[in-house]
Amino acid sequence: MTEGSRAAVLESFGAPVQLREYPVPSPEPGGAIGRVAYAGICGTDVHLQEGRLPIPLPVVLGHEAFGRIEGLEAPFTDLLGREVNDGDQVIWASNIPCGRCAACLRDQERTLCQRRRIYGINQSAEEWPHLSGGWADAIVLRPGSSVLRLPAGVSALAAISLGCAGPTVAHALGRVPAAIPHATVVVQGAGPVGLAASMMAIQLGAARVVVVGGPPRRLEIAEELGIGDVRIPLGEPNDVDDRLERVRDGMGATGADLVIECTGVPSAVVETLALARPGGTCLVVGQYTDQGATSLNPNEITRKQLSVEGSWAFSERDYATYVESLPRLTEAFELERLVTEFPLERAQEALDAVRSGTVAKAVLSPEAEP
Amino acid sequence: MTEGSRAAVLESFGAPVQLREYPVPSPEPGGAIGRVAYAGICGTDVHLQEGRLPIPLPVVLGHEAFGRIEGLEAPFTDLLGREVNDGDQVIWASNIPCGRCAACLRDQERTLCQRRRIYGINQSAEEWPHLSGGWADAIVLRPGSSVLRLPAGVSALAAISLGCAGPTVAHALGRVPAAIPHATVVVQGAGPVGLAASMMAIQLGAARVVVVGGPPRRLEIAEELGIGDVRIPLGEPNDVDDRLERVRDGMGATGADLVIECTGVPSAVVETLALARPGGTCLVVGQYTDQGATSLNPNEITRKQLSVEGSWAFSERDYATYVESLPRLTEAFELERLVTEFPLERAQEALDAVRSGTVAKAVLSPEAEP
Amino acid sequence: MTEGSRAAVLESFGAPVQLREYPVPSPEPGGAIGRVAYAGICGTDVHLQEGRLPIPLPVVLGHEAFGRIEGLEAPFTDLLGREVNDGDQVIWASNIPCGRCAACLRDQERTLCQRRRIYGINQSAEEWPHLSGGWADAIVLRPGSSVLRLPAGVSALAAISLGCAGPTVAHALGRVPAAIPHATVVVQGAGPVGLAASMMAIQLGAARVVVVGGPPRRLEIAEELGIGDVRIPLGEPNDVDDRLERVRDGMGATGADLVIECTGVPSAVVETLALARPGGTCLVVGQYTDQGATSLNPNEITRKQLSVEGSWAFSERDYATYVESLPRLTEAFELERLVTEFPLERAQEALDAVRSGTVAKAVLSPEAEP
Amino acid sequence: MTEGSRAAVLESFGAPVQLREYPVPSPEPGGAIGRVAYAGICGTDVHLQEGRLPIPLPVVLGHEAFGRIEGLEAPFTDLLGREVNDGDQVIWASNIPCGRCAACLRDQERTLCQRRRIYGINQSAEEWPHLSGGWADAIVLRPGSSVLRLPAGVSALAAISLGCAGPTVAHALGRVPAAIPHATVVVQGAGPVGLAASMMAIQLGAARVVVVGGPPRRLEIAEELGIGDVRIPLGEPNDVDDRLERVRDGMGATGADLVIECTGVPSAVVETLALARPGGTCLVVGQYTDQGATSLNPNEITRKQLSVEGSWAFSERDYATYVESLPRLTEAFELERLVTEFPLERAQEALDAVRSGTVAKAVLSPEAEP
Repeated sequence: MTEGSRAAVLESFGAPVQLREYPVPSPEPGGAIGRVAYAGICGTDVHLQEGRLPIPLPVVLGHEAFGRIEGLEAPFTDLLGREVNDGDQVIWASNIPCGRCAACLRDQERTLCQRRRIYGINQSAEEWPHLSGGWADAIVLRPGSSVLRLPAGVSALAAISLGCAGPTVAHALGRVPAAIPHATVVVQGAGPVGLAASMMAIQLGAARVVVVGGPPRRLEIAEELGIGDVRIPLGEPNDVDDRLERVRDGMGATGADLVIECTGVPSAVVETLALARPGGTCLVVGQYTDQGATSLNPNEITRKQLSVEGSWAFSERDYATYVESLPRLTEAFELERLVTEFPLERAQEALDAVRSGTVAKAVLSPEAEP
Repeated sequence: MTEGSRAAVLESFGAPVQLREYPVPSPEPGGAIGRVAYAGICGTDVHLQEGRLPIPLPVVLGHEAFGRIEGLEAPFTDLLGREVNDGDQVIWASNIPCGRCAACLRDQERTLCQRRRIYGINQSAEEWPHLSGGWADAIVLRPGSSVLRLPAGVSALAAISLGCAGPTVAHALGRVPAAIPHATVVVQGAGPVGLAASMMAIQLGAARVVVVGGPPRRLEIAEELGIGDVRIPLGEPNDVDDRLERVRDGMGATGADLVIECTGVPSAVVETLALARPGGTCLVVGQYTDQGATSLNPNEITRKQLSVEGSWAFSERDYATYVESLPRLTEAFELERLVTEFPLERAQEALDAVRSGTVAKAVLSPEAEP
Repeated sequence: MTEGSRAAVLESFGAPVQLREYPVPSPEPGGAIGRVAYAGICGTDVHLQEGRLPIPLPVVLGHEAFGRIEGLEAPFTDLLGREVNDGDQVIWASNIPCGRCAACLRDQERTLCQRRRIYGINQSAEEWPHLSGGWADAIVLRPGSSVLRLPAGVSALAAISLGCAGPTVAHALGRVPAAIPHATVVVQGAGPVGLAASMMAIQLGAARVVVVGGPPRRLEIAEELGIGDVRIPLGEPNDVDDRLERVRDGMGATGADLVIECTGVPSAVVETLALARPGGTCLVVGQYTDQGATSLNPNEITRKQLSVEGSWAFSERDYATYVESLPRLTEAFELERLVTEFPLERAQEALDAVRSGTVAKAVLSPEAEP
Repeated sequence: MTEGSRAAVLESFGAPVQLREYPVPSPEPGGAIGRVAYAGICGTDVHLQEGRLPIPLPVVLGHEAFGRIEGLEAPFTDLLGREVNDGDQVIWASNIPCGRCAACLRDQERTLCQRRRIYGINQSAEEWPHLSGGWADAIVLRPGSSVLRLPAGVSALAAISLGCAGPTVAHALGRVPAAIPHATVVVQGAGPVGLAASMMAIQLGAARVVVVGGPPRRLEIAEELGIGDVRIPLGEPNDVDDRLERVRDGMGATGADLVIECTGVPSAVVETLALARPGGTCLVVGQYTDQGATSLNPNEITRKQLSVEGSWAFSERDYATYVESLPRLTEAFELERLVTEFPLERAQEALDAVRSGTVAKAVLSPEAEP
């Protein structure tokens, strides 16, 4: 194979990502090649570079991507029943569960599969097919990948604007369907997950959403896009009780019907419990990386009879759900305004922007002029 | 009214209960008089005497009772559709929710009603009708009380043997119906709540129950009655990791499908999370009184995608469920063997026995000879 | 009491309603007087006049009403936690379940209470307090009535515009919370129930709603208000298979995720099953009156593994849910445009308009000039 | 490959099955060979022979089987986390869903996969590997097959005794977990599915089971094994209302909490609805083959607010659930007594016995002497 593809590679923890070139192989039977148009940068990529998760190195980063599909065996129908043809613009799921373990078959909860491949995270760039992440001109999609065509009227940039926060929140909200309709909701966190949760909760029938988060720039963006009914900056007031009181003012006397934790900070979970009404639901989405223990009074769980639901990552079906939600979501919110684009060469610069919080969402555009 | 009734009264915190005498009034329209045959003593009664919960004093204790109903307006059909006639032997629910608040009507979760009357706990003996607890010859059942006739073949002693642990566990298990069938279950705690949870989980289709608890005498009783498939004494080994390993040996590699916390000890909840498998369910029943905070890592909730369900007390329906479960429960377990009877005069002695854990279940029998 | 109130009374089946006058009594303790501002006319009122349901005669009709509350005992907090004061404008629930039966307590499904009072339907005008229906200047609200204050920004006319279809649909959709998000929905019927279902399904996160109904005027109104994504007139084509095909064109290949039957026609249920996808949900709301049997193949239920959920009427909580939904509903749809107002004197004329389908929603305004 | 295996083949509809011989191939990577010890005969096999379902011919029949596994790639862990080694005695699931369609991935309901392979039903014996049914000495298990080791203390004969009725009922009951605990249950039908439903409902916490079915011999077997609390023969009385009354006598005034239809007769579904209490659940399992329409009044679904749940076949997970249930099931019921064994040569005779209802369960034993 003579054709090559650039790829942004993390070679050692702490070091900047480097552009490398790999040959683009022919796709396997049942597989395909994805020509990357957009690849998102996620907070998890920052953590990966910092060496906070155990992954093989070197690795082509990029678990959020969109592009043109090549080599797809026809006929192909995606999970939404849409026909996908070779050459179509598609989004693809970042992971391929094994399909055979107890999580996949007995418990039907594929996000808990311990053996799943994850593009851009647990596939070494040293092993064939090398191009196993989205920060590249091309990615090799292995058999078993899930690709989805976008609905009419939904732009590629809108689809990538939430990155993996889209399916993450689709998965999380799917765990508590009865808690959302007509609910007063508090969302803790104003990063992509928090913003996605705020938008999707309203879309699924919440009566009112109070967003608590920071930094201030993110709340400004939320306000500009009309995300959340009330927005309360974190740290102002600094006192927890004052903050709780202010949140409560925004949502009624006894507490929220549903509190969605999207912060990643262990102590935030203590406030999650405090903000829920008796009989309320707490959705703990943000505790993705292990940041240690916090001091928590479990009497609150019994006395208020709370439902505290963890939610871990997502599987293919959640991409389908997310894509299904895009027509109405893009009607209601200008998602594209969340995005700041960078060419592939400036991947490290884009990572730094995410680390510093100066952008809402950084997206690499390999096809763009540098 | 010239007739009188003895009643065991808590007059001040820390002091022994005293026998007093009150006149027995005519029942109100919609109310009735209960002639007490058996009244249970609960761990909460110990806490009440110790002043650990805010209640009015003096109070006639006793929130678990069974006896003959008098003055019931006919026709009366109980929640199970059984006809109840004046003079029948019945069990009655300890509480009367207000029926008008958001908890009662909007959320249909009457156990969370903030305004409910609770016999033997929040009704002052100084106010009419004075006889508002079960440790007495007679109790005045107010309008709105729920009474239930026992099914054929179920003895009164069996019905009182679990006390309020019966409806407590009926309520808790009712919150997680899909988590019980075919489940591997760990029950933390071998008091009445833990024993009731172990028996009822099997009755509702659990595949296997591992009981972790103490003191040793309670595990012996559990063994004698055939409660639990595996019984692991608390504190032996003393090391948490060793204990977890031993529990895991009893239930399979990845953890329990369902862990039921029935201990009242905050740090036990940390083990609750540790013992559950990814995708598992944690039922937090035991954190009834506020015993303070514990150090807990919320990453476990997200990473293992746990469902952590609090469960608070019970309402009338849970008495109905408990009574419905008694025919099969008494077929499988000799419940009466749990009971140690005391005459009403020896109420304080019975309380002391519960405090020291020398009995599995203490029950007062006002009609017995002293 | 010297003050009187006019009331529109059905004295015998088939006869026109007549204006009568009754004295307005002082409210009972726990009760209140409602000064009626608006009272809706429902298809059921047409059925009542035709003698198709067994009710006591004479009866003051009117089970949908809104007005000023007098004599309310303060403090009063409604099911949504809103403070209600004497003199406030409120909506009130049409029924008072007994609160004591197995349906009310054991099954927590108060809409199935066999002993509930229903204003305007099962309360004879011959018995005190006579004024027991909403087609009147005043209605006597008995102890146990549920009243709700409207949220800020919601007009009385908007609140009454859906009549009892609002809580009916709130109740029905509450039975299938997991079936609505991202669903393709077919609504059969374009009367108030069908229109309410179409609007609320979108509000709760449905991806797309196809309305099948008639007569043409109702679909025009639906189109003017933006109700439904696709609207298919009934009877055009007349052939069932053609209609099914056309509906399927509007919603994707294998059938709808959710079909909501709101027609009252037995044979429509056959199409309900036919329109659902394998694994789909059918919500049977419309079969309120007994119109006889239809020929139905139950193989479809097993083979497609359908969930077929009946939904009967509503209880107080459903009024609360409906009122909670009004702020977003009125933001999205101009509900007031559904209403045609009539003065109380013209109640029979309004009934005739409902019978003939010449109005979307007829509402009596007792305070209006005749 | 020189080794051969006998196989009982259906060559044309209506003709007797014939013994043929096929070579046993080496297993594919990820596949295995099953040496059949027991293969069940199901009512569906009777239907297949009668040509009532569209299948390819010739076909090696047999979708229920148990035997020794050969050629399994180690290490292999089954869905229950049990290690399976080459040479183990195992049960295997009859079907292999495609794993890629919307049913498999989006809806996580693999029993609705339209492209799944089913051993003994939709695999032609003319195509490689020919040995694709269980009525044979050997069956070729394709990659993706699910095999399960039996729990300690469960005999092979007990495991095969319910045939595919075991996973069918496991799947069906898994659809209504909240409806079973403490429920009064009516099971319509006393074939393998009805008997399995009666046993499993009790195991999952039903309070009482009333079995209505025939022929009389089956009810006798049910009685001998202690299946059901009450058994009512079908056709005696012949009048439907009398039968309903008699069933109601066995379960309480307002109807059953749960009715499980296991008959295959369309008109039985009318009784299913009639027997359920208001708010009850109907599980329609038996309408597997299309037997045409019946006259049914859908008002019953709305008025009684029924949940009518279809249940179609089963997937691998249901085998896992069934195997998990076997230890307690075999403790409670002597399952082996349901079985009548036949050697492979007498497959047609065994089929005839199933058709005529003279046996409860016919099982072929290829390893037995003829």
